[in-house]
Amino acid sequence: MTGLNVTQKLIGAHLVDGVMTPGEEIGLRIDQTLTQDATGTMVMLELEALGLDRVRTRTSVQYVDHNLLQTDERNMADHLFLRSACHRFGVWYSRPGNGVSHPTHMQRFGVPGASMVGSDSHTCAAGSLGMLAVGVGGLEVAMAMAGQPLYLTMPEIWGVRLTGTLPPWVSAKDVILEMLRRHGVEGGVGRIIEYHGPGLAALSAMDRHVIANMGAELGATTSVFPADEQVRAFLAAEGRAGDFVEILPDPGARYDVHEEIDLSVLEPLIAAPTSPGNVVPVRQVAGEDVHQVVIGSSANPGLRDFAIVATILAGRQAHPQVSVDINPSSREILADLTRMGATLDLIRAGARLHQAGCMGCIGMGQAPAVGRNSLRTVPRNFPGRSGTKEDSVWLCSPETAAAAALTGRITDPRTLPDLLGIEYPALTLPKRAVAPEGMFEPPLAPAEARRVELVKASSIGRLPDFDPLPDRLCGPVLIKLGDDVSTDEILPAGARVLPFRSDIARLAEFTFGQIDESYPARAHRAGPHVVIAGANYGQGSSREHAVIAPRYLGLRAVIAKSYARIHWQNLANFGVLALEFTDPEDYDRISQGDELSLEDLRAALERGGDLVVRDATTGADVVVRHRLSPRQIAMVLAGGQIPLIKAQTVT
Amino acid sequence: MTGLNVTQKLIGAHLVDGVMTPGEEIGLRIDQTLTQDATGTMVMLELEALGLDRVRTRTSVQYVDHNLLQTDERNMADHLFLRSACHRFGVWYSRPGNGVSHPTHMQRFGVPGASMVGSDSHTCAAGSLGMLAVGVGGLEVAMAMAGQPLYLTMPEIWGVRLTGTLPPWVSAKDVILEMLRRHGVEGGVGRIIEYHGPGLAALSAMDRHVIANMGAELGATTSVFPADEQVRAFLAAEGRAGDFVEILPDPGARYDVHEEIDLSVLEPLIAAPTSPGNVVPVRQVAGEDVHQVVIGSSANPGLRDFAIVATILAGRQAHPQVSVDINPSSREILADLTRMGATLDLIRAGARLHQAGCMGCIGMGQAPAVGRNSLRTVPRNFPGRSGTKEDSVWLCSPETAAAAALTGRITDPRTLPDLLGIEYPALTLPKRAVAPEGMFEPPLAPAEARRVELVKASSIGRLPDFDPLPDRLCGPVLIKLGDDVSTDEILPAGARVLPFRSDIARLAEFTFGQIDESYPARAHRAGPHVVIAGANYGQGSSREHAVIAPRYLGLRAVIAKSYARIHWQNLANFGVLALEFTDPEDYDRISQGDELSLEDLRAALERGGDLVVRDATTGADVVVRHRLSPRQIAMVLAGGQIPLIKAQTVT
Repeated sequence: MTGLNVTQKLIGAHLVDGVMTPGEEIGLRIDQTLTQDATGTMVMLELEALGLDRVRTRTSVQYVDHNLLQTDERNMADHLFLRSACHRFGVWYSRPGNGVSHPTHMQRFGVPGASMVGSDSHTCAAGSLGMLAVGVGGLEVAMAMAGQPLYLTMPEIWGVRLTGTLPPWVSAKDVILEMLRRHGVEGGVGRIIEYHGPGLAALSAMDRHVIANMGAELGATTSVFPADEQVRAFLAAEGRAGDFVEILPDPGARYDVHEEIDLSVLEPLIAAPTSPGNVVPVRQVAGEDVHQVVIGSSANPGLRDFAIVATILAGRQAHPQVSVDINPSSREILADLTRMGATLDLIRAGARLHQAGCMGCIGMGQAPAVGRNSLRTVPRNFPGRSGTKEDSVWLCSPETAAAAALTGRITDPRTLPDLLGIEYPALTLPKRAVAPEGMFEPPLAPAEARRVELVKASSIGRLPDFDPLPDRLCGPVLIKLGDDVSTDEILPAGARVLPFRSDIARLAEFTFGQIDESYPARAHRAGPHVVIAGANYGQGSSREHAVIAPRYLGLRAVIAKSYARIHWQNLANFGVLALEFTDPEDYDRISQGDELSLEDLRAALERGGDLVVRDATTGADVVVRHRLSPRQIAMVLAGGQIPLIKAQTVT
Repeated sequence: MTGLNVTQKLIGAHLVDGVMTPGEEIGLRIDQTLTQDATGTMVMLELEALGLDRVRTRTSVQYVDHNLLQTDERNMADHLFLRSACHRFGVWYSRPGNGVSHPTHMQRFGVPGASMVGSDSHTCAAGSLGMLAVGVGGLEVAMAMAGQPLYLTMPEIWGVRLTGTLPPWVSAKDVILEMLRRHGVEGGVGRIIEYHGPGLAALSAMDRHVIANMGAELGATTSVFPADEQVRAFLAAEGRAGDFVEILPDPGARYDVHEEIDLSVLEPLIAAPTSPGNVVPVRQVAGEDVHQVVIGSSANPGLRDFAIVATILAGRQAHPQVSVDINPSSREILADLTRMGATLDLIRAGARLHQAGCMGCIGMGQAPAVGRNSLRTVPRNFPGRSGTKEDSVWLCSPETAAAAALTGRITDPRTLPDLLGIEYPALTLPKRAVAPEGMFEPPLAPAEARRVELVKASSIGRLPDFDPLPDRLCGPVLIKLGDDVSTDEILPAGARVLPFRSDIARLAEFTFGQIDESYPARAHRAGPHVVIAGANYGQGSSREHAVIAPRYLGLRAVIAKSYARIHWQNLANFGVLALEFTDPEDYDRISQGDELSLEDLRAALERGGDLVVRDATTGADVVVRHRLSPRQIAMVLAGGQIPLIKAQTVT
């Protein structure tokens, strides 16, 4: 094969099963794993359930970046559990306050050419360094830690050619917002986005992180950038020049789908409430009142993303009606920001400086007042994700956020020179990042690790036991949902719910809380049941809890128009049957409350082809299909991957 | 009168009613008020209920320092309400992130010789500048804002003569811990503590703040320091040299009670869980495991209190099992700390840098794991105040906290030279503090203020209407409590409860939640009822919600062995009868559940002398008394101060 693109090179180098034909199942060897605390406690319980002695990956790192507020004893109990599990299983531990997993991992562990899975949907951000990094459910991370390949459907490769250079006041965030403006939140489903072309030369590795990160919002499997001079410069600045490997597309590399963006004609963009896909030019919504500006998260994590805000605000005061909330993305970046004086500029301008971590992005504090506009540099504005049920969150670049911080209104930052006499800052960033020593605890030696006891407070639950799929499945449609329902709506995050991530029985009581608070009680009464959904079901976060919790409450099958990739796999991992309407119009023929049944499931699944769902309430039959591989069918029939493995071990 | 002490000078200069004889009720003209957000929303609702047009104080300042986590929409709704109320009533507004009220007020508004009331028990910290500053319930602050005098019982004046100078590794916190070691949490009841003597010369104004602040933990009415050269230096450093007025005790000044502390023989002290009065030398408990160190709060708010921790940690790493949580006390101090490089030292050492405010001190985050030791420089360790029900919180100096941060164990900081080669740091602090501009919004001009509408989200409740005291009061003893029950136990603070401070109906459901979660439900069923308590009932925080909430649930009388000052006045303010056992042994004769009755209350109260409580369950009569002034009796009979004022207005 000649003329390979970067994605094909990365996949080819890790392929252990299948062929690189879009639509085929492939198996990939995984070099690194990343877990964060909100999903990681379950991963560690899964490792325990699997009886793993020590991880088999080259590098596995556990971050603590979500559950940082500690409004009661549960968060710290999780931290102690995770640290003990890292000691036990041979995993690196990143303590609370070190920052968000994605930029922190990039700075310390990112290596061009490596493959990685992470139990966080924004794991794809590592594509910025020329890695093949895929966000998956926790159980798949656990399997990778155990040395198993990652199985996924070979995506199409979407080549996005960048030309030109960004004009002043327009930055990387506007590039990915432009992608979302063009293609919406399903535009990347079944695809890997590979950026190429002359426009790349002026985009730093951290700029690329911004673009790769929010590829998740397009539904893409991941995003990939070449490992070129910008990546070399990034690694050198981190003191890891030796980790650089050049990975470029071959001359004549081909892509399955083609796209071109001329960076020089982009303008400041903003995603209006309540979807990352609602993108409009900032100038179209300029003048709207703003009460909060949130800077941070893995979507704009770079030193420059904070420094540019500091430089715009320096010597000025934030508008008195605006709360300016700064969430440093990593300890290292906060240290660099402080050394260069930018932290002081932010403090003096009236900003609130929070601890390094996800914080406001995941609704861990910083909830805005009802209906008051909050402009954020974060990746998502799904309804209620901020912690406020009737929130009004907009997604934008640091430049657009800084402009609103000064004016108290949505403001096209290109008007700042005229409005306030502020010219576009020419930033001078330190040439050498200074990673604080001792940020990470390295894995223990095997002999020492085997002596470690897991530290489990009473708030650390256990993984529920799940039974095999019955051959005859019947139950009511307990909830019927529309299109683009996110995992934030299936199982909310935020300060109220995240502390229960280690305790499925408690957590399950919040299932579908954003949509219908009566679901858990009705599920307890109904037992086995079905959920009906529209297109792109389960978009957003990778949290497998969005399957485990409803499964715990009796969910056995979902019938949807289509699925987001990670949630679809999570359903299989925990033994929930993910079906699709053969004819999308049939969605209208089934109502909430209808009693459904499926017969002879084992034979039907193993035979392949369509299945028939009988609606006992209407008497109608509806034809559905599935896209499960034989591997996934075995999993679903067994009640999930863990029961399957246990059954295989017994046999 | 010759030979006056500082307290007498301050009281004399503001006396508008009564005489300075201990035990007599006096009225004082109030120059300044301080409110924080957790109590301030109720104060603003009270101003609205009183129909006030504009405050009549010289300076009134509203701080936002408690409800900063914003786990849902309520906190920000409070902030918007408070800002609008400041605009409406002519009050300074300090935005979220500016820091804790006490150090912030001291830095920007503190003036020797001024009187102040604040709806926060640590208002007394301003005594460090030679102010007469008293923590009171919100309603008394509202009355002061309306131009009314503060009424209180003239305390004894307790002269504490300081000699010598503090040895290395021993600091101001150890001085107040020594007072608590000697006298316990009731030692200061009915007293004002005035510090004098040659030992003062080496104690900076911020050191004195530490000592004055935790006078609240002794139950003292307030603490007073002279306005001397140290105060002059402090004000000069703040750029307010012109605000200095010298106030020294006259030669031959006399005190009602005498005490002496030789600073040179003090050693590092620590208050063990779960009372500020459980003080022991650090060396006695050295070696205990530590999982958290919290630096901050109004108890150790000075730049030096953070800088010394930073200097001890500089170039080292916090112990991997310890979460080091830094809560800057004010924006100004965070700015100074950052300018001098100490912020960077903390970040690099592994600390978690939180936004400026009360934070961990009031259980707004940073809750430790169950039973894991947390060493804190804060003023209080009442059970559960940290946010964790079975917490284990210790109170200590920054030096002792820093030592534990490095070793992971309780460590006498005097051992650091031998243990880690760390000599006692000689700190060089900036000569001139740089207050960030525009931290505060000044009051609006009257004409503009009158056009302001209060911004009330649905989460902002209203002040309940309370009916007059019935002439015959009967009801059950709904709960019987022991000694030293704090307002944290009557009505918890923390991240779970504080957001409801503006909504009494919701808030009331948490009443006595630390002690007996069934109380609210039982109160709803019982209606009018009585609470029995031991000594020092209602110590700690000034929150009037600890009266309003149980009053809302039907509380009409408390019978206790004795009361903490602020809570006792709050009971009168909201029409709850505060009775005392004439014979403390009678406490044992009444049980929870007994049906009590009091007859002819109006006549009995107006007549003065003892009252008889009939216990219908046992048939016994118990003699009780009260210490209410005629002014307070009128209030209680009317159902509280606001109904009284309204009744007077109608008449």
